Amino acid sequence: MSTSSTHSEANGSVLLSPSLSFSSSKVFDVNRLFPEEKPGWRGYVEWEKYPNRKAVASHILEAHQSEFTQIPEFQFVPLPKTNPILIGYRWKEYHELLGLKNIVDFSWETVLKEKPDIIHLLDFPYNGETRRDQLLSGKITDNKWHFIRNHGGIPDIDEDAFELEIGGFVNNPVKLSMKDIKDPSKFPQTEVIVTLQCSGTRRIEQINQYPGDGDELINAPWGEGAIGTAVYRGVPLKKILKKACGGVLPECQHLEFIGADTYFKKNNVFNYAVSVPWKKVRQNEEVLLAWEMNGEPLPKSHGFPLRLVVTGYIGARSCKWVYKINALAEPSMGPVQRQEYLYYTAQIGKQNAKYSNGFSIQQMPVSSAIITPQDKEVIVHDGSITLRGWAYSGGGNWVERVEVSPDGGSVWYAVDPDDMTEKHYHAWRLWKIDIPVEAEGWLEFCVRAWDSSNNTEPTFVRSAWNWDLHVTSSCHRIKLYSVNKKRLATMKRIKELEARGEGIVPLSKPVEFALEDEGEYLAACRKYPREPLS
Amino acid sequence: MSTSSTHSEANGSVLLSPSLSFSSSKVFDVNRLFPEEKPGWRGYVEWEKYPNRKAVASHILEAHQSEFTQIPEFQFVPLPKTNPILIGYRWKEYHELLGLKNIVDFSWETVLKEKPDIIHLLDFPYNGETRRDQLLSGKITDNKWHFIRNHGGIPDIDEDAFELEIGGFVNNPVKLSMKDIKDPSKFPQTEVIVTLQCSGTRRIEQINQYPGDGDELINAPWGEGAIGTAVYRGVPLKKILKKACGGVLPECQHLEFIGADTYFKKNNVFNYAVSVPWKKVRQNEEVLLAWEMNGEPLPKSHGFPLRLVVTGYIGARSCKWVYKINALAEPSMGPVQRQEYLYYTAQIGKQNAKYSNGFSIQQMPVSSAIITPQDKEVIVHDGSITLRGWAYSGGGNWVERVEVSPDGGSVWYAVDPDDMTEKHYHAWRLWKIDIPVEAEGWLEFCVRAWDSSNNTEPTFVRSAWNWDLHVTSSCHRIKLYSVNKKRLATMKRIKELEARGEGIVPLSKPVEFALEDEGEYLAACRKYPREPLS
Repeated sequence: MSTSSTHSEANGSVLLSPSLSFSSSKVFDVNRLFPEEKPGWRGYVEWEKYPNRKAVASHILEAHQSEFTQIPEFQFVPLPKTNPILIGYRWKEYHELLGLKNIVDFSWETVLKEKPDIIHLLDFPYNGETRRDQLLSGKITDNKWHFIRNHGGIPDIDEDAFELEIGGFVNNPVKLSMKDIKDPSKFPQTEVIVTLQCSGTRRIEQINQYPGDGDELINAPWGEGAIGTAVYRGVPLKKILKKACGGVLPECQHLEFIGADTYFKKNNVFNYAVSVPWKKVRQNEEVLLAWEMNGEPLPKSHGFPLRLVVTGYIGARSCKWVYKINALAEPSMGPVQRQEYLYYTAQIGKQNAKYSNGFSIQQMPVSSAIITPQDKEVIVHDGSITLRGWAYSGGGNWVERVEVSPDGGSVWYAVDPDDMTEKHYHAWRLWKIDIPVEAEGWLEFCVRAWDSSNNTEPTFVRSAWNWDLHVTSSCHRIKLYSVNKKRLATMKRIKELEARGEGIVPLSKPVEFALEDEGEYLAACRKYPREPLS
Repeated sequence: MSTSSTHSEANGSVLLSPSLSFSSSKVFDVNRLFPEEKPGWRGYVEWEKYPNRKAVASHILEAHQSEFTQIPEFQFVPLPKTNPILIGYRWKEYHELLGLKNIVDFSWETVLKEKPDIIHLLDFPYNGETRRDQLLSGKITDNKWHFIRNHGGIPDIDEDAFELEIGGFVNNPVKLSMKDIKDPSKFPQTEVIVTLQCSGTRRIEQINQYPGDGDELINAPWGEGAIGTAVYRGVPLKKILKKACGGVLPECQHLEFIGADTYFKKNNVFNYAVSVPWKKVRQNEEVLLAWEMNGEPLPKSHGFPLRLVVTGYIGARSCKWVYKINALAEPSMGPVQRQEYLYYTAQIGKQNAKYSNGFSIQQMPVSSAIITPQDKEVIVHDGSITLRGWAYSGGGNWVERVEVSPDGGSVWYAVDPDDMTEKHYHAWRLWKIDIPVEAEGWLEFCVRAWDSSNNTEPTFVRSAWNWDLHVTSSCHRIKLYSVNKKRLATMKRIKELEARGEGIVPLSKPVEFALEDEGEYLAACRKYPREPLS
């Protein structure tokens, strides 16, 4: 448990034992209990096929329940200024207790290689957010900058050893190698430009105003960077089901995707599992089994060798390291599908939340964000302020229009189509606008997008707050302190400051010289006396 | 410089020299430059009478300008969790540099004696805020709990040695001993119940949303406790002017009060000085020269042996340790009066603020605050939530009505007169209300008061934000997370939690058991399927 030992010692908790003792005299190696059973599939443990194995793991976790590091409170207090910002002590301990420390180590090594320069929001399972300059660098997000939201460790699977199993309500259950899948004579390939987004994007806005559910797996306090766009190459899942399996049976209503990562929920252990409706796959040739991202093999952290790309849906459905697809009559009963990614009404919370009284978040609504400037910046300008950001809509809708307000949502200016990246069915648009600004002081800017179904965004965070803090799609708001150089008094003050080597920033730093001399002050106060004369 | 040496060493800044060297061979004692000239008046240096002394002090401060500790940034970042919360390094260094370290030391010793248990917002000059339970303890605030906002150190003056000098545009300039002033055969005495409030009360609400001016003397980030009420005994200033000075001359329009504390502004040194209109004193017998607070001699930190109590005005005008009163034709030119306590329009800020383009804050408007519960508390209740707080109006108005809204300001409930403390011309009213609450989740409560001139409060912080962050009189707002035990599903969850020794709090801590069993989940999802059937 070396990864967590410093922490455990620091807070005085009991160190977890690195092996399990089933008798007083002999110590067994836990790796025998939960082996990597397929050669070339490192970091993958099969759970779903073995109910007994799951039961043993549950028993072990329960026995150690009181020893795990508590989930940190980060909603009612400011976020740490560290990097990584949050540490997944508890999730690491789960892995380590079951003899899976190699997964923890390989994951972080992979992150340092593949994602050296993004914001490490949570170190394990890895959640990383794209920086502002990277977001605005272009319509396509570079692989090394694309955000990551993983639910477990990163497996290390050899492409040659990999196979995909398809079963359930299909005519012919099959196993396919990567060689089969990538063979264009067997399956037609396609490339699609796709924006993927975590349904937690912009969660920090909900947290800051109205904290909500914590989770065993820390629900990352995402800013505006849990979104990214890439060109994926792969085969439409529909074609695989048709050509390899002879189509699905009439009972098939949902397709379940199982990933090679290990997932935990309330002392139970799973392989990652989610599902999407068969109708979504049947109608959308853009639901891909993909192996290429922006012309390169999928990075390991993005699902190498094979992942789903479900256009228009939350990222969680685009299962990574997918090794099994089940055609089901009902949605997956896996915890990620059944117990998470639920959208609750505002009357639901810790006091009454169930799984069935939230609706299952699949498609993302229209949303947008201002990326530059940042909240609480001081902007010195000549009568206009430039804002840049992104806008996206899921569910097959595209963004038709973006509007920005400089006064909290009263007056709106539309972005010129020339200042937006082009439309795609499944990708965001980056935008830029120069807003005329005469006023000085704190101004509240906000953005809203309109999509091809004429949907727009809720007005305030409060308008769509929900207990699990998902889908923060309300108008993104920032406060800017406007300093208008076209005003004479302002220009004069700026010059006085500059003459002393100072500036308007830091805003809260007092001006060191007198703001007005006695003569000027007395003249003004005699002209407009402090009190009435009679 | 021992008080600040740890800090200076810690951040690597240059230590200030404890004495001044005017030549390369000999070191002089700075105490000769700025002596305590009156026996029995420890911690008092006279500045206003000696322009040369002021010039020397300015010169010394300027020479050391670059060595002073920077003013801390506490507006754009969270407040420290320390106690004292903020440390007045710079102000201490000014005193120490001029050989006045004894003032710094005596002040803090006095605070520890007289104010052991309030919130130490700034250690020097001392700014301390009354705690919530202390605020609600009754109409009269105990002397040891009453807030303090000092602008300099606390002098230590013997009552027998003290004298008050009155001059300027009066018929007969006089000097009065405390024995004279307290002699009922010379001057009529009175007792008045008075609420004093810093004009910075509730400043933290402005800071949190829209940071503003910093200051050389840290402008304390006050919460709701920079207000307090006491019964003061003293003599109406009007009577003293009449009986001791034979009245004022026709030129007299303002009365300037000078205190024994030392004040700094942009490298200049002063005695604390403020003024109020003569008309205010003439019309209000409640403007007192006071020596008793709640039946006890004034605490040293509150102005012993003598202070002004200016009813209905901001606390800054109620000059402590007042040893001189000047009848003037115009307002005081002291920096506290001329350059501070100014109320700016929202278009004024660092870029264009002067002294004459803000109006001088004298009377406090109607305002109120919710003291319990606190912002972001979780409230488990049976259909109603109890709120308590204060309401006050200055300028001779009293609070006529208090109203509370449970929905951000749409529906308002009035406080029952039986649940308010009685009316006084110059004191706050404490109030209590039980608000019917059915809804659960985050609710926004706010309060507003109406005064005897039918004034009420601005709606949002933004409605009255101002650069110097004064007079936060907008409706005080808090968010509460409501958990209504009258709802069956909620009561069931509370019992489940209690059976496991848990509760709803901490709100963000996940529930450890399954929120719903598989059977219940499937029944619900089959009755209301996740997707349409056709």
